[in-house]
Amino acid sequence: MENFELFGNIEQGKNFIESMKSKRFLFSFVISYTETCEIPGITFAGADKDSIQFTPPADAEYLHYGYCKTIDKIPMTPDGKPTPGLLTKTALESASIPHLTINAGSKISPQLPFIDTGMPFGKNISTEDAMTDSQVSHAVDYGRIVGRSMASLTDCLIIGESIPGGTTTALAVLKALGYDAKVSSSIPDNPVELKNQIVKSALERIDSDHPYSIVAKVGDPMIPFVAGMLSSASSVSNVMLAGGTQMAAVLAFAAKIGFNEENTAIGTTSYITGDESANFTSLVSKIADIPAISVNPGLENSKHTGLKAFSEGFAKEGVGAGGSIISSMIKTGNDSTKFLEIAEKEYHRLFTSL
Amino acid sequence: MENFELFGNIEQGKNFIESMKSKRFLFSFVISYTETCEIPGITFAGADKDSIQFTPPADAEYLHYGYCKTIDKIPMTPDGKPTPGLLTKTALESASIPHLTINAGSKISPQLPFIDTGMPFGKNISTEDAMTDSQVSHAVDYGRIVGRSMASLTDCLIIGESIPGGTTTALAVLKALGYDAKVSSSIPDNPVELKNQIVKSALERIDSDHPYSIVAKVGDPMIPFVAGMLSSASSVSNVMLAGGTQMAAVLAFAAKIGFNEENTAIGTTSYITGDESANFTSLVSKIADIPAISVNPGLENSKHTGLKAFSEGFAKEGVGAGGSIISSMIKTGNDSTKFLEIAEKEYHRLFTSL
Repeated sequence: MENFELFGNIEQGKNFIESMKSKRFLFSFVISYTETCEIPGITFAGADKDSIQFTPPADAEYLHYGYCKTIDKIPMTPDGKPTPGLLTKTALESASIPHLTINAGSKISPQLPFIDTGMPFGKNISTEDAMTDSQVSHAVDYGRIVGRSMASLTDCLIIGESIPGGTTTALAVLKALGYDAKVSSSIPDNPVELKNQIVKSALERIDSDHPYSIVAKVGDPMIPFVAGMLSSASSVSNVMLAGGTQMAAVLAFAAKIGFNEENTAIGTTSYITGDESANFTSLVSKIADIPAISVNPGLENSKHTGLKAFSEGFAKEGVGAGGSIISSMIKTGNDSTKFLEIAEKEYHRLFTSL
Repeated sequence: MENFELFGNIEQGKNFIESMKSKRFLFSFVISYTETCEIPGITFAGADKDSIQFTPPADAEYLHYGYCKTIDKIPMTPDGKPTPGLLTKTALESASIPHLTINAGSKISPQLPFIDTGMPFGKNISTEDAMTDSQVSHAVDYGRIVGRSMASLTDCLIIGESIPGGTTTALAVLKALGYDAKVSSSIPDNPVELKNQIVKSALERIDSDHPYSIVAKVGDPMIPFVAGMLSSASSVSNVMLAGGTQMAAVLAFAAKIGFNEENTAIGTTSYITGDESANFTSLVSKIADIPAISVNPGLENSKHTGLKAFSEGFAKEGVGAGGSIISSMIKTGNDSTKFLEIAEKEYHRLFTSL
């Protein structure tokens, strides 16, 4: 318990942590895409503008193979800091937690077997609607099918995502649904102004308070799909939404279509819960009566600048890193000192082999 | 036990049945395609020549939704006899066994979420090679990945298939690997002569005894993919190959790439093990030291001609019907009388609703 900080429904959070010890976890990795990420300066999820679209499939390949096939290195920030997938991979492997990749609108397909949903990627919300209403319905329906199937195979379904630019669409959805949200960023100096401009122009297109219409106009494909997964999975097993403000947007939309709060928790890193430019924990409490579990991976103690960077605000979260670390610590009993040790091994393997 | 007849490694078969009671099962449904099925008179897996290509995705949709999206009725023989998927669906639902669909070379994608493998369909082996050697490697590699993932989520992975024309490619692969095989058919008056002609012309193209080359020249995409699944899954959990002579071909190829016999069983219907035009049980014994488990679904006692037909030699097996019935009986303790009762309910639902 001392590894974690609890917010929201703290009792339920304690029970979740206790009841999940030595239980079965399954990590589902949802990759998607919104053209909103192509707006210059909006994301660091990629070494440069052209490589951003390869980040979601490359993260999936790295999780699975330990290296990427779509690109020659693992996803990095422009200045060479590694994907948070490094933390996810370390967490899942150290706890022998199996994972499956789901393509819910990625522009590029990963080079591994994955669950296909036939979903197109989202459009740039600063200039046009992200999706049609029927594409949102399709996303929710297929999310419900996938969530039910996966939840029937485990005791706790962890859901992580990779969608560059997703914090901006998350911000738009949260605001459109009536929440005074301030979201985090993969960039230490959060480009709040730019995000707010984009969101403002996107919100002007909203002409209905129907949740499907709102997500279609200003959201991204990941949000309705994961909300669909949550709504069916939470009626079958426990669900851990692994992420920061993007999962808050999923939660806000899921609250409209219905899900079982008693089986749901959201797990993230202390870099999100401690982010002063955002208001994650109070936001989650406003949306749903569920626990928010936060873990400090202890990366500030790393001897590698690339790992230390996460604690300094680079790519604070993503690829379900926080929820994966929490799940692996619950299953193995490891603390952050042990986690840092194995994360540094993986970092060393990557940056001596690549 | 009295529900089943055991062949091959009978001791292991008894242990399998005993040890699997009240365990977790997962049904994986592998859909594929070989243009060999377009040869007139080779298969009954479709109402007519043009609809055969829709049978695999339609079977997947029927298993999942209870109706089809790709076609307006469930798959049927030209004279209106239902797909063996009816037996599979009844078996899986009555035992609450979850299932996942895998597209391993189907010409048409199913309208539901499925695991994609990026595999192309197989060519007509009477006129050209089914695949390239590298396509076979891809199928085996991806099969290994999918098998490992799925086996880690259950105690027993059931593998069923739907590939029209597949008994002919299975016959070719078995003969090319040195087995004196006589295979079953979806047609009561097994078109043995036609199959042998096709196989003969296919075998003439073989110029290497390398198993990958043999399957590439005269096989189909399902065989190397399911063999790959078996090779990895059998090292993690129990595996039930659900099918007749096509699974014998999978077994013959898997014996070349390696798999764990101790965790493997093959399950089918008594319509296959009792088929005089074939030699299933002796064939399996020659290939591997595993149990062959046979179930008589008791359909000869049905009041519906469409169900009775299975016992009269129409579509004796397919969509993993036999192995699914065996697994559901092991899990629920149902006998064939109880199974027939629920199968007739499903038959009635279909043919009064459609």
